[in-house]
Amino acid sequence: MAHRIGIVGASGYGGAELMRLLDGHPALDLAVVAAHSQADTPVSQLFPNLAGAATFDHVDLDVLRELDLVVLATPHAAALELGGRFYDAGTAVVDLSAAFRLSADGFLEWYGQAHPRPDLAAGDPTAAPDVAYGLPEQHRDRIRDARLVANPGCYPTATLLGLGPIAGLLEPGSVVIDAKSGTSGAGRAAQDHLHFAHVHGSLTAYSAPGHRHTGEIERWLPGELGAVTFTPHLVPMSRGLLATAYGTLTEDATADDVADALHDAYDHEPFVHVLPTGTFPQTKALAGSNGCQLSAVVDARTRRVTVTSAIDNLGKGAAGQVLQNVNLLLGVEETAGLSAIGVYP
Amino acid sequence: MAHRIGIVGASGYGGAELMRLLDGHPALDLAVVAAHSQADTPVSQLFPNLAGAATFDHVDLDVLRELDLVVLATPHAAALELGGRFYDAGTAVVDLSAAFRLSADGFLEWYGQAHPRPDLAAGDPTAAPDVAYGLPEQHRDRIRDARLVANPGCYPTATLLGLGPIAGLLEPGSVVIDAKSGTSGAGRAAQDHLHFAHVHGSLTAYSAPGHRHTGEIERWLPGELGAVTFTPHLVPMSRGLLATAYGTLTEDATADDVADALHDAYDHEPFVHVLPTGTFPQTKALAGSNGCQLSAVVDARTRRVTVTSAIDNLGKGAAGQVLQNVNLLLGVEETAGLSAIGVYP
Amino acid sequence: MAHRIGIVGASGYGGAELMRLLDGHPALDLAVVAAHSQADTPVSQLFPNLAGAATFDHVDLDVLRELDLVVLATPHAAALELGGRFYDAGTAVVDLSAAFRLSADGFLEWYGQAHPRPDLAAGDPTAAPDVAYGLPEQHRDRIRDARLVANPGCYPTATLLGLGPIAGLLEPGSVVIDAKSGTSGAGRAAQDHLHFAHVHGSLTAYSAPGHRHTGEIERWLPGELGAVTFTPHLVPMSRGLLATAYGTLTEDATADDVADALHDAYDHEPFVHVLPTGTFPQTKALAGSNGCQLSAVVDARTRRVTVTSAIDNLGKGAAGQVLQNVNLLLGVEETAGLSAIGVYP
Amino acid sequence: MAHRIGIVGASGYGGAELMRLLDGHPALDLAVVAAHSQADTPVSQLFPNLAGAATFDHVDLDVLRELDLVVLATPHAAALELGGRFYDAGTAVVDLSAAFRLSADGFLEWYGQAHPRPDLAAGDPTAAPDVAYGLPEQHRDRIRDARLVANPGCYPTATLLGLGPIAGLLEPGSVVIDAKSGTSGAGRAAQDHLHFAHVHGSLTAYSAPGHRHTGEIERWLPGELGAVTFTPHLVPMSRGLLATAYGTLTEDATADDVADALHDAYDHEPFVHVLPTGTFPQTKALAGSNGCQLSAVVDARTRRVTVTSAIDNLGKGAAGQVLQNVNLLLGVEETAGLSAIGVYP
Repeated sequence: MAHRIGIVGASGYGGAELMRLLDGHPALDLAVVAAHSQADTPVSQLFPNLAGAATFDHVDLDVLRELDLVVLATPHAAALELGGRFYDAGTAVVDLSAAFRLSADGFLEWYGQAHPRPDLAAGDPTAAPDVAYGLPEQHRDRIRDARLVANPGCYPTATLLGLGPIAGLLEPGSVVIDAKSGTSGAGRAAQDHLHFAHVHGSLTAYSAPGHRHTGEIERWLPGELGAVTFTPHLVPMSRGLLATAYGTLTEDATADDVADALHDAYDHEPFVHVLPTGTFPQTKALAGSNGCQLSAVVDARTRRVTVTSAIDNLGKGAAGQVLQNVNLLLGVEETAGLSAIGVYP
Repeated sequence: MAHRIGIVGASGYGGAELMRLLDGHPALDLAVVAAHSQADTPVSQLFPNLAGAATFDHVDLDVLRELDLVVLATPHAAALELGGRFYDAGTAVVDLSAAFRLSADGFLEWYGQAHPRPDLAAGDPTAAPDVAYGLPEQHRDRIRDARLVANPGCYPTATLLGLGPIAGLLEPGSVVIDAKSGTSGAGRAAQDHLHFAHVHGSLTAYSAPGHRHTGEIERWLPGELGAVTFTPHLVPMSRGLLATAYGTLTEDATADDVADALHDAYDHEPFVHVLPTGTFPQTKALAGSNGCQLSAVVDARTRRVTVTSAIDNLGKGAAGQVLQNVNLLLGVEETAGLSAIGVYP
Repeated sequence: MAHRIGIVGASGYGGAELMRLLDGHPALDLAVVAAHSQADTPVSQLFPNLAGAATFDHVDLDVLRELDLVVLATPHAAALELGGRFYDAGTAVVDLSAAFRLSADGFLEWYGQAHPRPDLAAGDPTAAPDVAYGLPEQHRDRIRDARLVANPGCYPTATLLGLGPIAGLLEPGSVVIDAKSGTSGAGRAAQDHLHFAHVHGSLTAYSAPGHRHTGEIERWLPGELGAVTFTPHLVPMSRGLLATAYGTLTEDATADDVADALHDAYDHEPFVHVLPTGTFPQTKALAGSNGCQLSAVVDARTRRVTVTSAIDNLGKGAAGQVLQNVNLLLGVEETAGLSAIGVYP
Repeated sequence: MAHRIGIVGASGYGGAELMRLLDGHPALDLAVVAAHSQADTPVSQLFPNLAGAATFDHVDLDVLRELDLVVLATPHAAALELGGRFYDAGTAVVDLSAAFRLSADGFLEWYGQAHPRPDLAAGDPTAAPDVAYGLPEQHRDRIRDARLVANPGCYPTATLLGLGPIAGLLEPGSVVIDAKSGTSGAGRAAQDHLHFAHVHGSLTAYSAPGHRHTGEIERWLPGELGAVTFTPHLVPMSRGLLATAYGTLTEDATADDVADALHDAYDHEPFVHVLPTGTFPQTKALAGSNGCQLSAVVDARTRRVTVTSAIDNLGKGAAGQVLQNVNLLLGVEETAGLSAIGVYP
């Protein structure tokens, strides 16, 4: 029998992508697509790909609580409250926002707010054992046993997949992350800087050096690498995210160690593909998929390793990874409804 | 047990899209991906979304003949020959090229060549009964019983889906089709006019008035509408095709007749969606899918109807429709492996 | 000595493009850049290409009235009022809006409003002799002597340049115009349907069949061609407009007549270029310029002529043409500050 | 009287952009546009913006030698030979290639070839005094007196403008440059990886870690910063280049020192604009122009400075800077024919 799940905040890009992915899923039944401000609006009015007569549902906690799992796709302020409520009611939760990714201290530092539930903050030393940071390639077992999963941010997903396996080979303090994302990462709301005429043919950095994903990356990078420099850029494409991460190899680490670490980590992963050194991942190869492609190269002159990792920011960077986490948490086949093959060209 | 199928000419966009769609198909096993000039080349070298170790196969007719069905994704010259051979050997064929779409006379007129097998020319009065023009919404029964299916061109698909149901309401000689396609419609080969720097931010018409799809549209438009004017345009997007078709209503036809005809034709179709008058299909809503969205509007001042129909040129306009035809021909669920939901945004 | 001019409504794309064009103009001094709602805002905040310390001015009619010429770049409602005031005060006016393009009757029909000043409506039979419709290639002498010039719309500019010279060769009632524009034509305001993520990779028709430019085209097409069908489309590019216009040749007209008419009209024009039959204009060739490129082809099977004409919607379709009109009206060299060479690639 | 200049290799993007810029230049007469393999081809066939009847000239050294100045827009192999010949004949040369940018040793290291004329290698300690590296903001006086100018590469231009003024504030060995360019930087030749369908919606790194511009940056960065890490990326836009450069501040350097150094360097420059800290340059603001916009931000947590600098790779990164150098070398007003205002939006 299918598991019944619901989405709260379904009118954003993350929610819509999840609706697309769940269409025809063999084991999950999408019972509720709630969106507070868009309740009763036809879904197709916001997302013309989801043609048909369905409308967004109202947010009814009594109905949602009865589901097997609720995906929160709301801003973190709402998620902080709803996540706790569903968790306490025994309803499983996967949260797309930053509400439960950091420690309580980290949340205060990067989001300027005391965390109301340190026990649900996946990055907190006091987090409950059934709370997980939802990067399956690095925390799969904990996700399987979780009741609340904090789905990673798009930039941290790409960065951690790239740097995680080789973190032990890098000098503390040497990490620079230059990341680039398509505009869907900025959300559905119409804003001046997202006007097609302004983005088309243009590239720009933004939010450096204090982008909030910096704290999430630092929290979940293995080892003791210290503070990192993180600069995001807005790229004239709709989907796609590329993280170019730099770090200096420790004295005894070699290029072979880097290659070995990546292959050890990913050769048996269904969604992460290590490309040969000298080839570089292209974001379009992952468009619409839950895949990640990455490769590393070492510059012997500077002893710096450069890792580039590509994902679809709405796929492995958001809704795809949510579904992977939902599958894991509910005991469904991890790859059900997902693919690593992007829509190319 | 899965049906075993093969692709010849798999190194083009049509073949690659079919590979993507067949990944994980519940009833079809893609046994051969042959590409004459790219044999032994890793698939991922041409199509980075299809990561992994697979290489293109050599074209071995003995092997292919033993399959349940062969998809031809070659130029029409090669298809003319291969299609006949497989058909004669009893192997089912779906052909992506123009080789078998017209009548023998039409083929001579538009392709400048005598047709070697009028019995296999789907548009010929002498065509064998197991040869079909592969537009399921208009020729489904014949496709089900076919052994050779001529898959329609991308422009004819969008145009015929838009105009077919209302052809009887239009004045002969009044039809103008202004069509627009993304660049993947021009194929994978690097050419000056497809260089990103030349296409980005640019729009142009091409090949008017003699584009070969004109003849295909005229052959398969129901009724006696006579010669049509057809102008294709190249649009700065990778996928997506929009046909804007104009025709003058006959004296006693009304806007309601137009709406009724479209709804009668499509309300029960899984892949074609009629949008309300006053809304217009967006190509992106169909990206990566086998869907078609269309709508019609009537200008009372001129009595002209304008029908706009959108598809993904590689989906419903090529590989998606191929798979729909393969499913039908092999008796598999028509929608298996296909979706009408595009990757949006 | 330089002529002193001002812009009202300078914070829109038309105004900003004019600022760019006037930078370094040999004979015009841009003394005022007024923008009601953006007064005191740094220009570079809205238009990062116009770096520096300048801010938008307040709208001060006393100051503006003293200038040699005022360009109105406001919505038509404001222009209706301001245009009359400046005209009455003896200040020359070039208006970018639709306020003065039609006849009074036409304005009522297409804009739903009685025209307050039929004497200033360039398309009205009672228009004052010093009021002109600002398409220099067709109304140059009148513009030279004008005190108020109604700058044409972007779609009418491309369409009239293409069809104007051959209108006498076409059957009444046979004209269909399928036009395509980049998104800057929709203005600077952030709107859902202009979000980069929605436009990128997408194409759609809109506002058919009642787009207001239909009335403007009908008013200024020479001859008695009657009502036309006009369908605009939104193309995923920032600038650029292509009009594909169709009409049926009269019984005794020939393809040579079409070619002759176009060459007669444009061979001595500085900004309009007729391309050889069989080649097609690309919008990018005109990006940032005041140029227009066009070509015509005749389909002997249907006796339809297809004319495609390309412009930059912000250049010849807006600010470029404004400057051409300003130059003419003020007796400056017509081409000063303008070029027909686009930024390509 | 106008100076007579010629271009050799005019059929590439650099040459075409220079043709566009020189149209209407007040003091330069473009007498020859030579292109070996495209001689007699209409210019408009390759560059539709340059409409008209002109054809590419043959390469005739006798004719070229008589000009006041020759711009070389050929590959570096041809430039190595031609540059020496013209220089020896007393004809001034500005070379767009890498032929004369490095030292003889550097040329051997990065281009794998012994330099035939170390006296003309601008980066060589033995270079003749009338040979200059053509970055006017850092070598203006030498350019004024030069007879051969090596025009900088696109990536070095953006990087050196950004890092040059603050190089003395950075720790040796700490510099990482993550650069991003539009596709026109890869040249006009049709190649698979430049196909619109492959680039649209995609982003990728390439040529790391051995891209040849690394050596040029290291040669011309002031001070003793040592080897740098340089990673270029291909961005889905036609023009535009953004360099994001990272370096660690020395112990006693401050964020104010960074800001002061940039303002000291550029407040009186006509083409370089320092943006306020916290705002970031957008490439589109410079499209079609010779401008550069840049800004710097310091992360107190890591003591790293991030400088982003944006140019048009064909403007300040190629033909625009060529014209600036030509103006300087010939004693023409430095800004003649150039603008810092890009075509936006």
